[in-house]
Order: sequence, then structure tokens, then C-alpha cells
Amino acid sequence: MSTREIRIYQDLMGQNERWASQTREVLAQHRLLMVNLIGAPGSGKTTLIEQMVPHLANKIRYAVLEGDVATTRDAERLDALNVRVSQLLSGGACHLEAKLVHTALIDFDLPQLDLVIVENVGNMVCPAEFDIGEHAKIAVLSVTEGEDKPLKYPLLFREAKAVVITKLDLLPHLTFDLQACRDNIRSVNAGIPVFEVAAKHDTGLAAWVDWLCTQRRAITPTPQA
Amino acid sequence: MSTREIRIYQDLMGQNERWASQTREVLAQHRLLMVNLIGAPGSGKTTLIEQMVPHLANKIRYAVLEGDVATTRDAERLDALNVRVSQLLSGGACHLEAKLVHTALIDFDLPQLDLVIVENVGNMVCPAEFDIGEHAKIAVLSVTEGEDKPLKYPLLFREAKAVVITKLDLLPHLTFDLQACRDNIRSVNAGIPVFEVAAKHDTGLAAWVDWLCTQRRAITPTPQA
Repeated sequence: MSTREIRIYQDLMGQNERWASQTREVLAQHRLLMVNLIGAPGSGKTTLIEQMVPHLANKIRYAVLEGDVATTRDAERLDALNVRVSQLLSGGACHLEAKLVHTALIDFDLPQLDLVIVENVGNMVCPAEFDIGEHAKIAVLSVTEGEDKPLKYPLLFREAKAVVITKLDLLPHLTFDLQACRDNIRSVNAGIPVFEVAAKHDTGLAAWVDWLCTQRRAITPTPQA
Repeated sequence: MSTREIRIYQDLMGQNERWASQTREVLAQHRLLMVNLIGAPGSGKTTLIEQMVPHLANKIRYAVLEGDVATTRDAERLDALNVRVSQLLSGGACHLEAKLVHTALIDFDLPQLDLVIVENVGNMVCPAEFDIGEHAKIAVLSVTEGEDKPLKYPLLFREAKAVVITKLDLLPHLTFDLQACRDNIRSVNAGIPVFEVAAKHDTGLAAWVDWLCTQRRAITPTPQA
């Protein structure tokens, strides 16, 4: 059991755009990549991050901001793996707002980081509408949810810079049509990269983590950095 | 292929409580039960309704209001089974509002109905906060989502009058702890009935449909009815 303290942040309201801009400045200053994982409850976002840990180790320095409506369960799961993590509680809200993310972000030792992974509240609708200053929204979709979801929740898949399809190991037990899912994603966002993973079986994670590292390397240092 | 027309309703704003009250009046007048299915995207709400069709037939007269952010896919699935159905498009919103539900409800031939099943937008947060005049919110949770969801989304499970746990047939392929899930549900809502179904295998549906029929019979006729 880890004895490290989990910090908890909570925010109910905020002027979103102003805080998102401030976050962008901080990220640029520290040459930090921030990604915002968005998907339905139970789409496997926390498990994805858990299983990324060995792939991220010795490759990129990272921390996680865990968004939830209630409980610190997800942060505890990552804390048990010695991941730098803070729990963001949305206070009942269906999405994370930029102020809350900013407040927790600047509390990390930023010069020691290259990447911040935000796990948004489980919800395919509202988080897609809110700018938190991130470089990229990432849509997380599990194969148990059905191949029609990119069409039914088009904003998320249009806003996203990448899609991670999870739980591929369950395909033999489902009627999910993977090719139709890929086609549906591309019909709303033509060129988007799609990563297909079975996190619990450590399948497909390397390519996804490589993509994140490439995105980080592509951030130009600011003149004063 | 069905040639019947699918009616489509769309609403962007509304004074929610006033419309919810009007809906309650209409439901009382016609001794109609209205239930509001709420669950994550891909939790199996539409499949549940599809597989309920043979159980509902000759037992109770019903219609369905299908809520989605975009597309008419779910209404088309039910229309193909000759279910009376209207598609409600939330116009990007993360939940159904009472005005939209009311408008579509009163367009049905109400004296010919006993039950209206509303499938809300796939989302475990926002729909739980909105009164649409229904008798009961029903939480729909699939076993692929994890047994912690009642704790992470407590409002839904506290507001609900029943829970339907879906996709029980996938249990052998998951690490889902069914007893822990039941305990988590009861920890936020002690006496709530929990139905456990595998809709595609026609398991557990009879008890759930019987419960709906019992709820309908419990509605007292209004004096003028």
C-alpha cells in the first residue's frame, strides 16, 4: 500500500476560456504535452492508463489528473502504481472545467514532467464541448459500446486528435463490427489516427504510447525555455 | 423493411419544470406509466428494449421515445420491430428536456397506451438531474462498465426506482464482481430492485417486464378517467 497523500481538488464554476488560455501558457513554458481522455463510463480509461505505466516508464515523465463526479477510487488505483496523480472532483458536474484542471496542473513539479494525462469525467457528450487548454482530446471507445457511437456522438470524434478503441480482447464474444467502427470514425474525422488496444493483455499499447511521445517531441521549445 | 414514418422531434431549450408537470397531468389522465431509462452510451438500452418486445406483446400497450444527440438509428431499430416509436434529438444536449418529451408524448394516441418507455441520451450524469415528468428513472448498467459505477455516479442510482444490470452473458470474460456491484447499488439506494439480464439470450427479461406491468397496475385511475 502506498502511503503517499492524494491531493483532491474541487471546483463548481469558472470562466473557462481564461483558465484554458493560462493552461496553454504554462504548458508551452514547460514544453509539456497535455492530453484529455474522453469516453463513456466504463470505457476503460483508467485501465488504459494503468496498463500504459510500464510503457511510459523510462520514456517520458508524466503525471495524471483523474476527473470524477465522486470518489477517489481512480486516483487510488494509479497511486498504488506510484503514478503522480491528483483527483479532480467535478462537484456533480458532467465534465471537467479549465479552472479546476489549471489549479491541479500548476501544483505538479512541472519542470519534472513531459506529459500530463487528464482523464475526464465518464461522458461522451459534455467533456467534448469544454476546452481545458489541452493539446489533444482523445476519444476512448470500448468495443462493448457498439460501432455506431462515432455517429451518435459526433462532436467528440470530430474534436478528437486520436481515438483509442479498447477491450479488443472481448471481440470474440460480441457482435461488434470493427471495420464499421473504423469507417464510422473516419466518416466524421477522415484522417484521425485510431489505436486498437486490449490493455489487460498488453496489446496495442506500444503504438499508442509512441504516438504520445511523438506528439511531445513535436512541441517547439519557447524562446525563453 | 418497415415503411412507417419515424417522427423526429428536436428541442434546444425549455422551462423544464413546467413541462414536466404538464406531462404528469397527461400521464395521470390516461393512467399511463412512463419510465426513463438512463445509462452510459453502449450500456445496452436499445437492445434491452428490442428484446423486451415479445415480453411486452399482449401484456401491455406501449410506445417508445428514443433520445439521442444525433442520428435516428435507435428509432429505426425499433421501428423495424413495429414498435410505436418517435426519435427525440437533443440538439447536441447531453440529456432530454421535459418540453421535448412532452411534445412527442402527446403526439401518440394516448388512450391506446399503458406504458411509455423513454430512452434518454447515453450519459450517466446529466439525465439524472432532469425531471421529465416520468414515474421512475431506471438506471441501466452493463457489466462491462465495472462494479464501481454506482459509487462514481451516485445521483443516478439514488434517483432511480430500479436498476437493470445488462450483458450478464459477458461475465465469464470479465473481472466484474456482481455481488460487489449489488452491494454498491444498495449502499446508495438500500431497497431498490435490481434486475439482472442478458437481453440477447432472453435471460431475466420476464421479471423486469413483470415489474413494469405491476407499476402500471398500481397507478390509481383519476376521478374523471
